[in-house]
Amino acid sequence: MTTNIPAKEMREVLTALFSKHGFSKEKAKLLAHVHTENTLHGVNSHGINRVPYFIEQLQRGLVKKDAEAKKVEGFGNMERWDGKLGSGVLNAVQCTNRAIVLAKENGMGLVALRNTNHWMRAGYYGWMLAEQNCMGILFTNTEPNMPAWGGKEARLGNNPLVIAIPRKKGHIVLDMAMTQFSFGKINEYKLRGDALPYDGGFDGQGHPTKNPDAILRSKSGLPIGYWKGSALAMVLDMLATLLSAGRSTYKLGLEPFEYGVSQIFLCMDAATFQDGDLREKLLEEIIAYTQDVTPTGPNEKTHYPGERSLAHKIENEKNGMEVSEAIWHRVNDLLNN
Amino acid sequence: MTTNIPAKEMREVLTALFSKHGFSKEKAKLLAHVHTENTLHGVNSHGINRVPYFIEQLQRGLVKKDAEAKKVEGFGNMERWDGKLGSGVLNAVQCTNRAIVLAKENGMGLVALRNTNHWMRAGYYGWMLAEQNCMGILFTNTEPNMPAWGGKEARLGNNPLVIAIPRKKGHIVLDMAMTQFSFGKINEYKLRGDALPYDGGFDGQGHPTKNPDAILRSKSGLPIGYWKGSALAMVLDMLATLLSAGRSTYKLGLEPFEYGVSQIFLCMDAATFQDGDLREKLLEEIIAYTQDVTPTGPNEKTHYPGERSLAHKIENEKNGMEVSEAIWHRVNDLLNN
Repeated sequence: MTTNIPAKEMREVLTALFSKHGFSKEKAKLLAHVHTENTLHGVNSHGINRVPYFIEQLQRGLVKKDAEAKKVEGFGNMERWDGKLGSGVLNAVQCTNRAIVLAKENGMGLVALRNTNHWMRAGYYGWMLAEQNCMGILFTNTEPNMPAWGGKEARLGNNPLVIAIPRKKGHIVLDMAMTQFSFGKINEYKLRGDALPYDGGFDGQGHPTKNPDAILRSKSGLPIGYWKGSALAMVLDMLATLLSAGRSTYKLGLEPFEYGVSQIFLCMDAATFQDGDLREKLLEEIIAYTQDVTPTGPNEKTHYPGERSLAHKIENEKNGMEVSEAIWHRVNDLLNN
Repeated sequence: MTTNIPAKEMREVLTALFSKHGFSKEKAKLLAHVHTENTLHGVNSHGINRVPYFIEQLQRGLVKKDAEAKKVEGFGNMERWDGKLGSGVLNAVQCTNRAIVLAKENGMGLVALRNTNHWMRAGYYGWMLAEQNCMGILFTNTEPNMPAWGGKEARLGNNPLVIAIPRKKGHIVLDMAMTQFSFGKINEYKLRGDALPYDGGFDGQGHPTKNPDAILRSKSGLPIGYWKGSALAMVLDMLATLLSAGRSTYKLGLEPFEYGVSQIFLCMDAATFQDGDLREKLLEEIIAYTQDVTPTGPNEKTHYPGERSLAHKIENEKNGMEVSEAIWHRVNDLLNN
């Protein structure tokens, strides 16, 4: 059962909720904005649906509401920040903005952030960069939730990766985890009694499978491209850990709850080469070429990364967002009780 | 049939061959070194096996032996270079070295190269960076050789991506194309009469398949992770094209042969934060954790990216390289006739 919520109402309810949990008015508004924006973009799982878990993490003391991220080291266009275990969203917004400043000054800038928390929807920060006419590469490590190729036990995070490119007619924002399907998506297939359309994880014997039950039991998601996504997830964790001098997926796995992750914010100022018209033309050529194809099925279409996210936002701003009734009651209960 | 060739002999033969084709002694030696090094690392397909094709591209006039790559624009830590359609290997070595200089000066540097040619084994430049104690992200676009998700016709390059991290006990170098299997590998399965172990491309109806014959007929490789690798290949092409103001996969597909590709060399100086001992410790922790697992099969083991490449090099330096007899005869014929 879903209910239709306008963005304005969600922002107000969430601002009040985060204020009640001790965030300053300004921070509560920003947190509410990001969760609402993620839901507007159609990613409820990392928008409104994550709010109760975020409140739990606050109550467990794993997210510190009064923490202020701090620059700890800097050299040229690279900086290291310490998130002091504050809100992952607030820290990531701050470090994205800092990477933009470094890029506007130097052409390119990098912020490596340690001791931060879940940033909810990774793509949000890609859209932030693109709105400032910047390109970027962003990633985070996570607790272990998939095996490295060749072994049975979970040793890698799904380490979401974002690549963003500004575009006048709609930004390009790739936002992808290193697992083929999220556990949320696998659970949807299980509830419908369907097999996955492609291998999505491992069974108890360590073999790739389409069976959602087997994957949920083994808690082992499949890396995209089998050995290739396994290797990519490993090096993203290494880069995030080494550049930030922060906690690796290994360290994150030593704790019962995930907290204190490491993240990278790499930003390139698209205005550096002062050829905005050429850039738009080259992008339109690539998109037109990619979409000028025979579809593989009656409902298939080739999309550029970010295309559907933008369409969701336009639709949801006009008509309100479809939100799970249970989640919306839960959020309102948290506010009122 | 293979023959055993020591590295010294290969270097001498190739230096003579490239000299004969008009390269200066210095450039001929460097080209010979890179092709030999790629073969030492076990990647014959992008080492010795590629030499005849490189000579053909020279003879077609698509690779210009006298070209000198040139910096065309620069701002802060980002530069644009024009490869003038010279040798992809020589241009990539020059731009890798330039990115290292920019990184040593600024913390981080980026060179975007246009109008260049096939750089052979992408990983070579990752090893170059790591040898200079640098981390890096490198990629190239290619002619279209796989469909974008949802469409039947080839619209994306397999756009190899390299991520390199220096390490005292053996560098971490991820070197992966966006296709699940190379066409060379698919052909090996066909010759053995075997199916691929996982989906590796599309059949004539645009459906994923393990049948090597069907894939070789359709010329459509499968992106790693289906829609995810499709999106990643697309944004890598966009970044390479926009940052270099070079030719996109779309433009490369307009010509009968691939030439004039676009490449990115992003380099971070690992010495920036002056914590080399901590870096080594964090890396060893991650590798040990990843490898402390129950193998999925009797011959399985979890590797870090670059581990097998280094083992090949050590083995091949000691015992010589296994090279196809046909290829070795062809190369010697090119030199002597």
